[in-house]
Amino acid sequence: MSGSDQVSEFYAYVDSHQDHFVKRLSDAVGYRSISSDQTKEGREHVIEMGHWVRDQLAQFVANPKDAELVELGIQDKTDPQINLPPLVLARIGEDLQKKTVLVYGHYDVQPVGGWEEANPENPDAFKLGTTDKEKLIGRGATDDKGPIMGWLNVLEAHKSIADGLGKPLAEILPVNIRFLFEGMEESSSLGLDNWINEEAKKADKGWFKGVDCVCITDVYWMTTRRPSLTYGLRGIAFFSINIEGATNDLHSGSFGRMVHEPMTDMVKLFSALVGTNGVIFKEVEEMVPAPTDDEKAMYGKLDYAVDDLRKDTGKYVELSEVPLDLVMGRMRYPSLSIHGIKGAFDTITAAIPHNISGRFSIRLVGTQTPKDVHAIVDKFLRQEFNKLGSKNKMALVLETEGMPWVGNKDHWNFKAADAAIQAIHKLVPDYARDGGSIPIVLTLEQALDKKNVLLLSMGKSDDGAHSLHEKLDRDNYFKGTKVYGTYLYELAKQATS
Amino acid sequence: MSGSDQVSEFYAYVDSHQDHFVKRLSDAVGYRSISSDQTKEGREHVIEMGHWVRDQLAQFVANPKDAELVELGIQDKTDPQINLPPLVLARIGEDLQKKTVLVYGHYDVQPVGGWEEANPENPDAFKLGTTDKEKLIGRGATDDKGPIMGWLNVLEAHKSIADGLGKPLAEILPVNIRFLFEGMEESSSLGLDNWINEEAKKADKGWFKGVDCVCITDVYWMTTRRPSLTYGLRGIAFFSINIEGATNDLHSGSFGRMVHEPMTDMVKLFSALVGTNGVIFKEVEEMVPAPTDDEKAMYGKLDYAVDDLRKDTGKYVELSEVPLDLVMGRMRYPSLSIHGIKGAFDTITAAIPHNISGRFSIRLVGTQTPKDVHAIVDKFLRQEFNKLGSKNKMALVLETEGMPWVGNKDHWNFKAADAAIQAIHKLVPDYARDGGSIPIVLTLEQALDKKNVLLLSMGKSDDGAHSLHEKLDRDNYFKGTKVYGTYLYELAKQATS
Repeated sequence: MSGSDQVSEFYAYVDSHQDHFVKRLSDAVGYRSISSDQTKEGREHVIEMGHWVRDQLAQFVANPKDAELVELGIQDKTDPQINLPPLVLARIGEDLQKKTVLVYGHYDVQPVGGWEEANPENPDAFKLGTTDKEKLIGRGATDDKGPIMGWLNVLEAHKSIADGLGKPLAEILPVNIRFLFEGMEESSSLGLDNWINEEAKKADKGWFKGVDCVCITDVYWMTTRRPSLTYGLRGIAFFSINIEGATNDLHSGSFGRMVHEPMTDMVKLFSALVGTNGVIFKEVEEMVPAPTDDEKAMYGKLDYAVDDLRKDTGKYVELSEVPLDLVMGRMRYPSLSIHGIKGAFDTITAAIPHNISGRFSIRLVGTQTPKDVHAIVDKFLRQEFNKLGSKNKMALVLETEGMPWVGNKDHWNFKAADAAIQAIHKLVPDYARDGGSIPIVLTLEQALDKKNVLLLSMGKSDDGAHSLHEKLDRDNYFKGTKVYGTYLYELAKQATS
Repeated sequence: MSGSDQVSEFYAYVDSHQDHFVKRLSDAVGYRSISSDQTKEGREHVIEMGHWVRDQLAQFVANPKDAELVELGIQDKTDPQINLPPLVLARIGEDLQKKTVLVYGHYDVQPVGGWEEANPENPDAFKLGTTDKEKLIGRGATDDKGPIMGWLNVLEAHKSIADGLGKPLAEILPVNIRFLFEGMEESSSLGLDNWINEEAKKADKGWFKGVDCVCITDVYWMTTRRPSLTYGLRGIAFFSINIEGATNDLHSGSFGRMVHEPMTDMVKLFSALVGTNGVIFKEVEEMVPAPTDDEKAMYGKLDYAVDDLRKDTGKYVELSEVPLDLVMGRMRYPSLSIHGIKGAFDTITAAIPHNISGRFSIRLVGTQTPKDVHAIVDKFLRQEFNKLGSKNKMALVLETEGMPWVGNKDHWNFKAADAAIQAIHKLVPDYARDGGSIPIVLTLEQALDKKNVLLLSMGKSDDGAHSLHEKLDRDNYFKGTKVYGTYLYELAKQATS
């Protein structure tokens, strides 16, 4: 069979196995793999999902040991103590004549509080909803179970082709593949960095031996109409402001206007941190140089319109009606979002909350590091809190962090993906920076001595990752599967120097 | 038996039945009567508590029909539909030669989220904790199950005395008593006003026929060392600010610095409403005249020290170190407390909450009405929101309301309570205004043609009503029971003109 015949057969397999592939995603969505749920039962769901993913991969490896679970031990500071979900690893192909690509994804998901109310037609976040024929609705559909299932679909199709030829799967695949799927991505990837760095310390780079490039499938298109290749990410510094007043919550009737109220202090501090226009307090803004004309020209070329944002948000809530402002707002400026205030009652009860934790994060760009930004935020908040003259106690905690990243978009790894997208979508991809933060990108880039890392999206900008309306377009699930497979063929074609 | 012998026998009964009375409170606390819980199961707990209180009262009435449940129908806007908890009514004594006192209390309680973490030694809010020998710890211990049990204790002691004399209870009681206990006080007393006003419309005032004065036992001492008689209350206007942005929660990485974030708008609005010093925005402050010298002198006489507040709050969080400022802060100034923000995630997740509801209340004084304050807050928030230039939608909702109240502290009803307190506690009570809001006070005063209403406290200022550390001092439970009983004898002695 010629290479192009094999690709055609792969496409035909995807086209004729759509319902089967949807069933696979449906099975995957069925696992309540919420990594932030620290109950024993909750964690068990994540672990079960990990086992299921391993079993799926086990169908496609040459030796059973090539699809394995790596236990990462007990999660720190948990009561009751719970184990970290396992890493799922698989290796297919050891041909030194072929390139080796490392594929990363995660099988855990965000929590689903409020999903039922938000989705009267698909009230169960863990039952793949297909009421809308064009959408696959459910927690994890796009982030990141859909992409992982895409890879399994690619393997299944090629296994079928290989079986038809009476050959091993690895032999007919154009590249060697390494799969690394984790179960804690939505909870700071606890345990992952340690494992990666331990492997990478080994003389031959341990499990990573021979990896030539990395493909991470945990991002989204910049719009709903044109695929993206992502070569940059913002970093993140996620903070808690803890304010403690009285020893107990107080009755607001009896104690209102007698005591300093932590909620009042909190809203004053939050209010000082960021403007309604999205601009952060001066010291953080000053860390980022103004855009050059070249930079503006580059961002101006991207295919982005105000309506793209409106499609994603469902409302007219954009900070600017100039597309360039929006694109740069996401890609090259820091942002600050306030996520909520823990410890304050959310029912109609008239207490003065006494011990509260306000959560916010700053997305970082350029040379901003979480450490530097932490120091600047800490100093600023102390100054602002002193101005308030409150007798309450305030403390800032840096909860999680990730560095900003910019990769090399001119590398052959990107060229292969570009060709795959053009082949399937008949569109030139946007070369985008994403506003999100994926610390694994930097970890892998550093551990693998600057091997090129590509972010290859399957989902669209309106897929609602993390939201109560998460979905993956049905059509996109199949096209995404084809893009992944095609990317492997294009990788094989690329000259490496 | 002489009157004084009977009083002595009453005191002796209380002293010798302490464990039995604690058991009664323990049984009462055992009911999970959280009126804000709108599940069917939750409401069933409140209704069961109502039945239990009725059964308790039934032991002491002459005819079974004198202890009754009044059904108030279905609660509006509930899904699933749930019934309002019943009113519990009881009448003892129809002697036209005696005064008739109406006693009000409530058998529902506040929610208990977080109780277990806050009380490692007494983790169950509905199991009366006695790990500290001097305290009765549990939800409702002081607000308001303790006081209701106090009245039942008074009845039981007198039933025992009456049985000994071979007389009916009503005959030996110095006054006729009417009990009105509700199960929705912590949830705006839904249904109560309607029922009261329907009865009071009747020519002979219906169930209220013959009532001479009212005693409400749902307040607290101003300090921990001296009982109070309360003759004034602040009103309340409880608001939600609803801010709606995008159709869904958005990923803060992808959309941070592209959209107007509702949380940012919210903290700006809250920040404009009130200062860290407790001062509310100008238009609300201007509704209240500055205190006169006479007023200052009156408040200055109260037995209150900064340390009293510190005992209640457990920390140094007072707005002022001048006792007069604190007393006036509670009694004669309005206050504003922010209670929480609903719809924002309270776990570590990096979303931009899209539809949030910020809860706050203003306690009202003097001539401030909820209606006037609502209009002023609404206008102010619109102005402030316009200044923000946000494209999100903002709406203000007045959720619950209550008028401020000042009663006649020179009335014989107060003199009777004063004498009872002096007899039991050997202390002259503080005549205080409470910073809280109890709409039933005004409802009853108006329905009963300005009959005097007394607020007679059992609990101390540090009892932590509504908090996660609610308790009633054991000693105070017995003394409070004695005060209630003594108050009945003192009422009988009072000249009414």
